[in-house]
Amino acid sequence: MDAIVTLTTDFGVRDPWVAEMKGAILGIARTAGRAVQLVDVTHEVARHDVVEGALALEAAAPFFPRGTVHLAVIDPGVGTARRGIAIAAGDQVFVGPDNGVFTPFLSGTGWRAFELAAAEYRLPAVSRTFHGRDVFAPAAAHVAIGVDVARLGPVVTDPVRLPWAAARARGGAIEGTVIHVDRFGNLVTSIAADAIGEGAVVRVAKRAIPLVGTYGDLAPGGLGGLVGSSGRLEIAVREGSAAATLRARRGTRVIVSPTSSSRATASSRTPARGRS
Amino acid sequence: MDAIVTLTTDFGVRDPWVAEMKGAILGIARTAGRAVQLVDVTHEVARHDVVEGALALEAAAPFFPRGTVHLAVIDPGVGTARRGIAIAAGDQVFVGPDNGVFTPFLSGTGWRAFELAAAEYRLPAVSRTFHGRDVFAPAAAHVAIGVDVARLGPVVTDPVRLPWAAARARGGAIEGTVIHVDRFGNLVTSIAADAIGEGAVVRVAKRAIPLVGTYGDLAPGGLGGLVGSSGRLEIAVREGSAAATLRARRGTRVIVSPTSSSRATASSRTPARGRS
Amino acid sequence: MDAIVTLTTDFGVRDPWVAEMKGAILGIARTAGRAVQLVDVTHEVARHDVVEGALALEAAAPFFPRGTVHLAVIDPGVGTARRGIAIAAGDQVFVGPDNGVFTPFLSGTGWRAFELAAAEYRLPAVSRTFHGRDVFAPAAAHVAIGVDVARLGPVVTDPVRLPWAAARARGGAIEGTVIHVDRFGNLVTSIAADAIGEGAVVRVAKRAIPLVGTYGDLAPGGLGGLVGSSGRLEIAVREGSAAATLRARRGTRVIVSPTSSSRATASSRTPARGRS
Repeated sequence: MDAIVTLTTDFGVRDPWVAEMKGAILGIARTAGRAVQLVDVTHEVARHDVVEGALALEAAAPFFPRGTVHLAVIDPGVGTARRGIAIAAGDQVFVGPDNGVFTPFLSGTGWRAFELAAAEYRLPAVSRTFHGRDVFAPAAAHVAIGVDVARLGPVVTDPVRLPWAAARARGGAIEGTVIHVDRFGNLVTSIAADAIGEGAVVRVAKRAIPLVGTYGDLAPGGLGGLVGSSGRLEIAVREGSAAATLRARRGTRVIVSPTSSSRATASSRTPARGRS
Repeated sequence: MDAIVTLTTDFGVRDPWVAEMKGAILGIARTAGRAVQLVDVTHEVARHDVVEGALALEAAAPFFPRGTVHLAVIDPGVGTARRGIAIAAGDQVFVGPDNGVFTPFLSGTGWRAFELAAAEYRLPAVSRTFHGRDVFAPAAAHVAIGVDVARLGPVVTDPVRLPWAAARARGGAIEGTVIHVDRFGNLVTSIAADAIGEGAVVRVAKRAIPLVGTYGDLAPGGLGGLVGSSGRLEIAVREGSAAATLRARRGTRVIVSPTSSSRATASSRTPARGRS
Repeated sequence: MDAIVTLTTDFGVRDPWVAEMKGAILGIARTAGRAVQLVDVTHEVARHDVVEGALALEAAAPFFPRGTVHLAVIDPGVGTARRGIAIAAGDQVFVGPDNGVFTPFLSGTGWRAFELAAAEYRLPAVSRTFHGRDVFAPAAAHVAIGVDVARLGPVVTDPVRLPWAAARARGGAIEGTVIHVDRFGNLVTSIAADAIGEGAVVRVAKRAIPLVGTYGDLAPGGLGGLVGSSGRLEIAVREGSAAATLRARRGTRVIVSPTSSSRATASSRTPARGRS
C-alpha cells in the first residue's frame, strides 16, 4: 500500500514551492521504487502562524490512517539554528521545523522525537533558505518509504512546545486560556471538549457565556461557547468578533464553571462548528 | 485499479475541513486494504450555493472514468432533518446531502437513489455539524471500495431537484429560464446547446441577442449568447455584467427563436467559453 | 509505477476547468488500464502570463522524477492557429500550447519537439475553446501511459521561445535583462546564479546593488540582489518594490560586475528566497 504524506504550510498556492516539495518527495520515493500519495491539509496558514498550523494538524491528523507522515513547514526560523525534527506519535509521524507546530501530539509519553541531522536523508544540495524542499520533504519521503525515524538523527527529548497552559481544575471549575484568535475573531481555548459538563457556563473577563451546540444556534450578534472542529472549547460571536466583543486575546483567561451534572453531553464530544 | 473519489464543496482551502474528509476516506479504504485516488473539483463554490455546485459537477463529471464517486458537500441544512443520499447514475455514483446538487444527473430513468441511513457506513462518532466528514465522506469511501450503493439505506424515489424548468418548445421557439447568475454576471440558462439551431437568435426581456462561438468573439461591452463549458446556453457581456445589462436574475425567461436551418452548428455542441 | 502528470495553468481553482482536464487524463489512462498520479504546480498564474508559467515550471520541474509529464495550459491563443506541442527534454516531457512556456527546457540540443497533430490522441470531440481539456490533457495522458512522444505529430524544429536574451559576457562583466517583474515588484533576470562570483556587484540603471544571501538579510526598504528559487538573479526591495525603486521593467538591462574571486559562493548556487 502506498504511503501517505500530508502537507501543511504557509506558502500559498500561487508560487511553485509546494510543487517543489512534492517533486522532491516523489523523486525520492521513485528512486526507491515506491509510490507516495500526497494530500494537502492547507497551504493558507497565516504567514508564520505556527499556532494556526498546529490547530489545523490537530484537527486533521486523527482522521488519517496509521503510518501517515505529516509534513508541516511554517518556518519563520529558516536560516537560523532552529532544529528540524521528526516525531513518531501514536501510529503516525510528524516532520518539520522544531517550532511547536507539533505540540498537540506531544502529550503524555507516547511519542519519540529525533533531530533531522543525517545528511543522507536530505537533498544532495541544501539551500540556505528552502529547507522545506531540501531537508523536511526529503525526511518525510524517507520515513514514508520505510526508513526508521530513529535513523534520522539523535534523540530529541525537549521538542519545542507552544506555551499552551494546560487547562486545570481550580476550585471546582476548569481554568484555561485563549490560545488562538482566528481570522473571524473566534477565540480558540486550551480547554478540551470532554472537560465540559452539561449545562456548564463559560466565563471570560467576568462575562458569563452560554454553551451552544453549534454556531447556528446563536442569534446574529449572539455570543456563545461551543466545541470547535478540533475538539476545543471556542467562543464565538455570530457574524461578529468574540475577540472584539470580549477584548480578549491570546492568553486571556477562560473559566468553565461546574454544573450539577457531571456527565458530558454527547454533542460536546464532537465538533460543533458547522461547515454550512 | 484504485477507485477515484472527487470532492466538491464550499469549504474553501484555508481550514483543514477538506483534509479531514480526505483522511476519513483514506482511513476507511486502508482498513479495507484499498487505495483511493482523490481529485478536487472545487472547494470555492460560493457559500451554500447548491446551484453553483451542481453546475460544476455537471461540467466535470462526464470527463471522469466509469466507477468514479463524486462527493459533493454544500450543506446549508446540516443539523436539520435533510437526508443524505447516494445516487447511482450512468456508471458513476454521487454522494452528499439531498439538496438538489445532483439534479443534472437525475434526468430520465437511468438513476437509482438511496438514503444514507446505514450506521455501519458512517464514522463511529457522528457530530451534529460536520456530516461531510462523518457521514458523506465515509459513504463515498465505502462505495469507492466496492460496497453496493443499495446497501447504504432505503430507496429514495423523490430526490430533491433544483427547480430548473426544463426548456420547452413553444410556438416553434425554445423557452427556458436563467438558472444561475455567476460571479461575473453571466446568465446560465436551462437551455441545452443541442437545442440551438444555426443562426438562432436569443431573446431576453424582448432584447435580441446574437449567438457567438466564443466569449472572445464579442467586442468589449458586447452582449452575446454562447454555449458555456457545461453545454448550456449562457448570455454574457464581455468585460461587463449581462445580469445588470438585461436586469435579469434567476428565473428570468429566455427564448431561442427558430432558424431556417434545423442543423445544430458543430461549435454549439461543444464548450464555448475559452479558458484564455 | 504510476506515471506522474503535473498541471500548470492560469485557470484558478474556483471553476471546474482543472477538474475537467484531470478527468480527461484519468479517463484515458483507465481505458488503457493505467493509473496516473496528478500533481498541481499552480493554477494561479496571472491570466495569460506565459512568462510566469515558464518560471514556475523552471523552478519545479527539476525536482520531479524522470518520466514526469508536465502539462502547462496558459493559452491566450486558444481558437487561433497556434500549435500544440510536446517537448521531450532531459528525461521529462512537456505538453501544451506552443507559446514559449517551455523556453527553460529548450537550451542546448537535448530536446525533441513534436506538434500535437494526431487526432487519435485528442478527445473525440474537440471544442473551439477548451483545448486544455480536449487536446493538451489527452496528449499528456497518452504520453504518460507510454505513447512515444514522436507519434503525436510532425517534428517541430522551431518551438516558440520567450525573448529572453541570454546573459552574455561583456568587457569582463555579465550583461542580462529583467525578464519578469513579479507581483511584489521583484525583478527576475536572465542571469543565472552560477554566473555570479563572490563579492560581485549588480548594476541596474547605474545604481550599484549589493548581493545578499537571502531576502531576510535586507533591512526594511533595503535594495539587494539575491538568487531566487529558480536559480536566477533577482533584485528585490524588502517590503517594497524594486521595479518602482529602480524604474525597471521587462527588458531593463542588468549588469553583474566582475570580482577578484572567480569562485562562486556556495550560497549563490542555491535558492535564496526564504519560504519564511
